[in-house]
Amino acid sequence: MPVYTAPVRDTRFVLDHVVGMQNYGNLPGFADATPDLVEAILEEGARFCQDVLAPLNRVGDEEGCTRHDDGAVTTPQGFKDAYRQFCELGFTSLSAPAEYGGQGLPHVLATAMSEYVLSANQSFEMYHGLTAGAIASILVKGSDEQKATYLPKMVAGTWTGTMNLTEPHCGTDLGLLKTRAEPQADGSYRISGTKIFISSGEHDMSENIIHLVLAKITGAPDNVKGISLFIVPKFMVGDDGSLGERNGVSCGSIEHKMGIHGNSTCVMNYDGATGYLVGEPEKGLAAMFIMMNAARLGVGLQGLAQGEVAYQNAVAYAKDRRQGRALRPDQREADAKADTLFVHPDVRRMLMEARAFNESARALVLWGSLQVDLSRKAETEEERVQAEDIISLLTPVIKGYLTDKGFEAAVNAQQVFGGHGYIREWGMEQFVRDARIAQIYEGTNGVQAMDLVGRKLAQNGGRAVRTFFEVVGRDIADARAAGDPAGLAAPLEQAMGELQAATMWLAQNGMADPNNAGAGAYAYMQLMGVVTLGWMWLKMAGVSAKLVDQPGEDRAFHEAKLTTARFYAQRELTAAGAYRRKVEAGAEALMALPVDAF
Amino acid sequence: MPVYTAPVRDTRFVLDHVVGMQNYGNLPGFADATPDLVEAILEEGARFCQDVLAPLNRVGDEEGCTRHDDGAVTTPQGFKDAYRQFCELGFTSLSAPAEYGGQGLPHVLATAMSEYVLSANQSFEMYHGLTAGAIASILVKGSDEQKATYLPKMVAGTWTGTMNLTEPHCGTDLGLLKTRAEPQADGSYRISGTKIFISSGEHDMSENIIHLVLAKITGAPDNVKGISLFIVPKFMVGDDGSLGERNGVSCGSIEHKMGIHGNSTCVMNYDGATGYLVGEPEKGLAAMFIMMNAARLGVGLQGLAQGEVAYQNAVAYAKDRRQGRALRPDQREADAKADTLFVHPDVRRMLMEARAFNESARALVLWGSLQVDLSRKAETEEERVQAEDIISLLTPVIKGYLTDKGFEAAVNAQQVFGGHGYIREWGMEQFVRDARIAQIYEGTNGVQAMDLVGRKLAQNGGRAVRTFFEVVGRDIADARAAGDPAGLAAPLEQAMGELQAATMWLAQNGMADPNNAGAGAYAYMQLMGVVTLGWMWLKMAGVSAKLVDQPGEDRAFHEAKLTTARFYAQRELTAAGAYRRKVEAGAEALMALPVDAF
Repeated sequence: MPVYTAPVRDTRFVLDHVVGMQNYGNLPGFADATPDLVEAILEEGARFCQDVLAPLNRVGDEEGCTRHDDGAVTTPQGFKDAYRQFCELGFTSLSAPAEYGGQGLPHVLATAMSEYVLSANQSFEMYHGLTAGAIASILVKGSDEQKATYLPKMVAGTWTGTMNLTEPHCGTDLGLLKTRAEPQADGSYRISGTKIFISSGEHDMSENIIHLVLAKITGAPDNVKGISLFIVPKFMVGDDGSLGERNGVSCGSIEHKMGIHGNSTCVMNYDGATGYLVGEPEKGLAAMFIMMNAARLGVGLQGLAQGEVAYQNAVAYAKDRRQGRALRPDQREADAKADTLFVHPDVRRMLMEARAFNESARALVLWGSLQVDLSRKAETEEERVQAEDIISLLTPVIKGYLTDKGFEAAVNAQQVFGGHGYIREWGMEQFVRDARIAQIYEGTNGVQAMDLVGRKLAQNGGRAVRTFFEVVGRDIADARAAGDPAGLAAPLEQAMGELQAATMWLAQNGMADPNNAGAGAYAYMQLMGVVTLGWMWLKMAGVSAKLVDQPGEDRAFHEAKLTTARFYAQRELTAAGAYRRKVEAGAEALMALPVDAF
Repeated sequence: MPVYTAPVRDTRFVLDHVVGMQNYGNLPGFADATPDLVEAILEEGARFCQDVLAPLNRVGDEEGCTRHDDGAVTTPQGFKDAYRQFCELGFTSLSAPAEYGGQGLPHVLATAMSEYVLSANQSFEMYHGLTAGAIASILVKGSDEQKATYLPKMVAGTWTGTMNLTEPHCGTDLGLLKTRAEPQADGSYRISGTKIFISSGEHDMSENIIHLVLAKITGAPDNVKGISLFIVPKFMVGDDGSLGERNGVSCGSIEHKMGIHGNSTCVMNYDGATGYLVGEPEKGLAAMFIMMNAARLGVGLQGLAQGEVAYQNAVAYAKDRRQGRALRPDQREADAKADTLFVHPDVRRMLMEARAFNESARALVLWGSLQVDLSRKAETEEERVQAEDIISLLTPVIKGYLTDKGFEAAVNAQQVFGGHGYIREWGMEQFVRDARIAQIYEGTNGVQAMDLVGRKLAQNGGRAVRTFFEVVGRDIADARAAGDPAGLAAPLEQAMGELQAATMWLAQNGMADPNNAGAGAYAYMQLMGVVTLGWMWLKMAGVSAKLVDQPGEDRAFHEAKLTTARFYAQRELTAAGAYRRKVEAGAEALMALPVDAF
């Protein structure tokens, strides 16, 4: 059975020294997040994930969800009970506002905990994860009455949420959607249509399910501008909050998928179901994107989470498995017929690549979550705008690049196992199958790349990317002034130079032919990903260099950080030039082949 | 249901113009392979693969193989009947020697046909593929009696073969194997031990199964030098070729795997089974490697085959699916609400990358198969040695690089489908799961990289790699002289320069510390892969540039070749520098972390 130990030590390092949580005691919620409380929450979360959720991961994969003839869906054995405990322990309400029963803690802390849940059991996390997204949308766009009706139960986890965008003929292009909303005399709407790929769409873990549904109101423009957002509860909710009769929404079938079998991915049929408009009519996409942006950060976290758990298992296997001898005679274990896999440089390569990714991805996601907190709560407008700029710019990178690299880490971790990695019982192939979805949903990674290049770069005249270059450049200068402990300054500066040149190239050539922007978008996202994780390594190496000699500090921990930073400098940042050249190759050869020639 | 059309047109192009089959009419078997016969075989093979094998691919995946209480194994519905037809149509005997009932055709032609079988149904192919490998070993190392007893039935497909190397505690490191062979008075051996991951180990498609088994004879050195190779038939074979009683070998269980469910991957128990020594005692590894080298080329072909079928389906989907509008208004389809996926540069990127890989990989595998033919059949010793040198050098590249790229192509093709790619019914996720195994078996790709850098580069004082550089360099010069139609000469020359520099670096630094060779091996293999496929594009572009204007030629076909070659030049060859820098990063940071720190 796969192992998993939540990396609490590393999370603390990031929260204390990269995020610098202690610097924000002036902001709502942060003062409550004392070091002791953070430690207690992470430790309790770690135990729950390790002891309860991780053992259910394979059960979920093997058993999957079952749809019964009446449309009811049963989750895998143990999921329901685990979810009850999850709610009771308060894990659904960490960062939710106190007025709806939440604990009001920083978003960044909830994100840290989410990583553990995702590593232990991605399918399980998605029941709560979608709820968190639905809460975010209702919080920002819902009426006071809607907030009062739905949020307390959703924060408590008693009710869960979903997001309903995709239809059989449209995913990325939501302008094509056909689900209709017919206004009723009482102000409600009758919702009719079919939605597919609805994660957690129907299940047996919560008392009610609150569907957030995109639809077009009768008479609205039949394009992306005519979309509105609706709340459609599974059970009608009375004025006193009691559950009434079943609404006209049901699960038509469960999808058979490559992975995340423990999550019920449903086809949802809306047959004149009663729905309630959220926010203004025909502003549904904006409302949904509140949920979507949060969800994209969460999906980026899935990349890290699968990379981390797969890495941990590969490390355990490499320590245990003996095969072949070290290339260097002085590194061979005397009296053994074979050495552990750790002596083989190519096994090390796969482990170090995964490690270097995981630790910097953790820093990036948590630092990014802090920006979400700051964009809402920082004291000055300037701080809020800068945080919003930079997290808006980096959201597609976090979603796209981290899920690609997390999948790669999972594939490499599986590779460490040789043939055993292909056998189900070892659990490695499940990590690969589960990790694969994160590159696809919440906007494919290609869509992320277009969001980055086509929208985020140009927004506000390029303000966000200028800020990014300034901030990273300042950190490089600081690192150099501090002696550049891991040798990162020069290669990071060079990689950033490639990114700046690619940015300039896109600005100049994307205008002339937008296909040039499209053709270079993916490589540009990868280039920004390499630079951004390098920047995180710069931050971490700076901290560890300061702490490594201090009494009371874990010397080995900081030495490992510095070594891994050096690895990243020497072997990962050097890819930047190749990405730039791909960007600058432009669209010509890419688009030249007539469609008939394919 | 997934589509598949065997790329006969492209195979013919490669056979005629890259392999140049017509130039070898002087060699045994080649004269028989007239253009008409080649065409007939490929067309008949294509039809069989498209009509019979491809529809069984999903059946095999869903149903898998079933082991019954008595140890018998049933293959998925339809497999047995398809295999019977496969044998009747002569597809098992294409390149086998005439004296054992084979058709004696060139190996390269059998390889061309194998691609179609693998694309249509990889699990099915493996029943025959392992047999072909076993035939190769017996042909070279078996006694005349063994050849007479086993080969005619195996060539006809009536009996199938397996290779038994791996045991629970050892895969790569065969020196650790525990299976024992006890000499008997009659010259046979009693074989005892457990083998795992035995593809096609037990099934219901053939009358007998001929297991080739590695074991140590009593008293032999307990290391890699003490290994011998044995034939262990499932049913004992009488002097008259009749089948006798069941031998002491049985299937203990079937592995549950990530993919290739249609192939029975067995744990095989040898309980004092009667075995017959193949070749000399304690020379078993060399005998097995005859089989293994052929198998590695076949596995490289699997990378291409899955990449090809996945690509074809992504193309079909991209032509059909409408989502979003072209970035350039002039490329938008009037009167449509959305354009096909083909207008999106990032979708094109995934398709063109797969296409550029598939076509050059096809050229490389077929050209490599010709080298196998030449190494055996060429008239002069010099030609035979050069062919052997170069295929020996490139075998790990073909196995390692082509399976990595084939997996990547399958993953990208799945990505084109968005969420539908993750749903089993569409079949794309099966291609990904099936493709994954090829990176692992027959020596993991990390083992291939070590074989390339640790053995193949240095063999005969580096003769093979020098030949490689000479041959490629000459082709670059020729291309330049011919006007360099696809702009490949300069980038290929530069990429080869990076490869030469990396080779030099390894020669200098691998001696000082062999971990430097190990640390750079994978990137070196990738670098050689990029260059080798670029070389194939150079060859193909040269041919198409000559033919494109000739009457009677398919102009669109050659124009597409030239465009795809240009794409490869501009967007793929440019990665070479990044690989070289990884090689030259050396082992220091990679190996620096103490094992305890992981």
